Amino acid sequence: MNGKWTELERNMRESGVSTLLITDPKHVYYLTGFLSNPHERFLGAVLQAGSEPFLLVPELDEEAARAATNIAEILTHGDTDDPYLLLKERLGGSLGTIGFEKERVSVANFEKMQDVLAFSRYLDVGPWLRELRVRKSADEVAKIKHAVNLIEQVLTESLRQVKEGVTENELVAEVEYRIRKLGADGPSFDSMVLSGEKTALPHGVPGTRAIRRGDLLMFDIGVYADGYASDITRTFGVGELSAELIRIYETVLAANEAAIAAIKPGVTFGSIDRAARSVIEDAGYGKYFIHRLGHGLGIDVHEFPSVHGENEVLLTEGNVFTVEPGIYVPGVGGVRIEDDVLVTRSGVEVLTTYPKQLTYI
Amino acid sequence: MNGKWTELERNMRESGVSTLLITDPKHVYYLTGFLSNPHERFLGAVLQAGSEPFLLVPELDEEAARAATNIAEILTHGDTDDPYLLLKERLGGSLGTIGFEKERVSVANFEKMQDVLAFSRYLDVGPWLRELRVRKSADEVAKIKHAVNLIEQVLTESLRQVKEGVTENELVAEVEYRIRKLGADGPSFDSMVLSGEKTALPHGVPGTRAIRRGDLLMFDIGVYADGYASDITRTFGVGELSAELIRIYETVLAANEAAIAAIKPGVTFGSIDRAARSVIEDAGYGKYFIHRLGHGLGIDVHEFPSVHGENEVLLTEGNVFTVEPGIYVPGVGGVRIEDDVLVTRSGVEVLTTYPKQLTYI
Repeated sequence: MNGKWTELERNMRESGVSTLLITDPKHVYYLTGFLSNPHERFLGAVLQAGSEPFLLVPELDEEAARAATNIAEILTHGDTDDPYLLLKERLGGSLGTIGFEKERVSVANFEKMQDVLAFSRYLDVGPWLRELRVRKSADEVAKIKHAVNLIEQVLTESLRQVKEGVTENELVAEVEYRIRKLGADGPSFDSMVLSGEKTALPHGVPGTRAIRRGDLLMFDIGVYADGYASDITRTFGVGELSAELIRIYETVLAANEAAIAAIKPGVTFGSIDRAARSVIEDAGYGKYFIHRLGHGLGIDVHEFPSVHGENEVLLTEGNVFTVEPGIYVPGVGGVRIEDDVLVTRSGVEVLTTYPKQLTYI
Repeated sequence: MNGKWTELERNMRESGVSTLLITDPKHVYYLTGFLSNPHERFLGAVLQAGSEPFLLVPELDEEAARAATNIAEILTHGDTDDPYLLLKERLGGSLGTIGFEKERVSVANFEKMQDVLAFSRYLDVGPWLRELRVRKSADEVAKIKHAVNLIEQVLTESLRQVKEGVTENELVAEVEYRIRKLGADGPSFDSMVLSGEKTALPHGVPGTRAIRRGDLLMFDIGVYADGYASDITRTFGVGELSAELIRIYETVLAANEAAIAAIKPGVTFGSIDRAARSVIEDAGYGKYFIHRLGHGLGIDVHEFPSVHGENEVLLTEGNVFTVEPGIYVPGVGGVRIEDDVLVTRSGVEVLTTYPKQLTYI
């Protein structure tokens, strides 16, 4: 039983939870090392206080599960089995209070659980998982670094395809082609390449706009590799940029660096956001920085915590999150510079290595 | 109010449902024409019996929603609003019985609904949506045909990259590059290219295996375009094939054609599966056809109905589904030939046009 299970078991004892039923595939991966997408089929990792955890997986995933995890007991269900009935048989009598992830279980599945498993009460254990996942282990950090390394290679290679006349969509196709060729699991979100005044749309969608001289060109891209995500943004100048765009760029870069300089254990997430925001406000662009500074990064590309100005939670060693200040001036253009960072014992390690100074293509 | 809403309203009256709360983004698209991915934000289409439907969308999606739908009333919520409170204010007093999609609402969101909206009972309306969606309109069929046309172009272009030594992963990268270049929304599922004996794994994962002479080469690929999916499989010979593989191919092709010949309104889905299966059984490969014949296709790449031997539901005009018999002989190889078909007034229209006779590359 690894340390994660031990910590969950302690939570169970403190809360009077007899049985933990984890069904979110990413939580199952986090706890057992078995990464899969069961689609509509049931997948569960189960812990009863005082016992070893076990897995219940679809029949056709049995071999993959055994190869991926050191959990000894792996039960399977076929397409005509009721997985809740199998669980009931395995778990026996009255369950008292069970714990599950309320945000990840549908009402339909909850009603099946209620009908079949004789539990008297339930508790949402989403927060327990969140608290565990927010502190990354060395192994998790290594996987995130690998995902960062892959997307940086993709960016380097894709930039070689930039020339006047190439479209945003064509560059997205280049990015995703290289993501596959390098052997990543896939993009960690919809790859975004925006150009010209479209860079001012933080939720812009790549299209058929062709790149031309004087444009800003923004790549916001990432991969999943080994189940962990990267997420980086770099903004470039095509040929030349106006003095205003250069000033915007330098302001965002200074904000990014100010935020990173403020990172260490014991300060609040809000203070990191404010460190970046005050640089942008001082330069007169405050009303154009219209989103939070960043978000947690790990098994999900967007995960706990949210890095915004009102978050008074304290940074602790092992937190991994994005630092992505931006300035978006409608009709003019936008710049965002996004790094992935790790909170270390004494400060910060920036996981992204791609240069940040203004570069022309 | 379009015909879909009228039909839902009739269901509401018959079941005593006062208020319909549709929150699955694909259902919202189906009913309103507004396609979006709200991620963790609330998106809902609401109908009260006797009124016009309205939408509640995230603030930042308001413009896109107004452009996409002719629903007159579009309410918005910001990130600091409670969308259920806004709904409560808009809907007023006691709601009686509400209807929502039990498979698509989490226990956490259900509890918020319960806390804020004063409803006394609830009914699962998933089956109502399923019954509507299973009968495709001419407009929906046109969108599916477009998605089929795009993936057939992708297949034609990707085949030009096949040569000895190229890997499965490289061909997946080619496929996805072309999907993007042609302007589709993206792949409709994990693009699958398998070669050699790996074709015998119906859930195989593309890898670094290099293509060589004598291989079977299987593409199972599809796109989303305009919110509708395509899903096709073609299997090719590389250079030459053994007599056994040729016999397997011809058997699968005959099974595919027998199933299609059996399609018309009024027969059961089970009979279509059995038409294909009996061809394969007669050839002695029955135990190697280890999955159902197909599945519904539309806004989801896998949707209702399931086309398996025990499905006694009758085909009706407007059904769209896949016909994908296969034979998988472990250690030898597998062949699958998958078409997308539409049930017409008098028979069938095959939406896929890519040739099916055995082709060597």
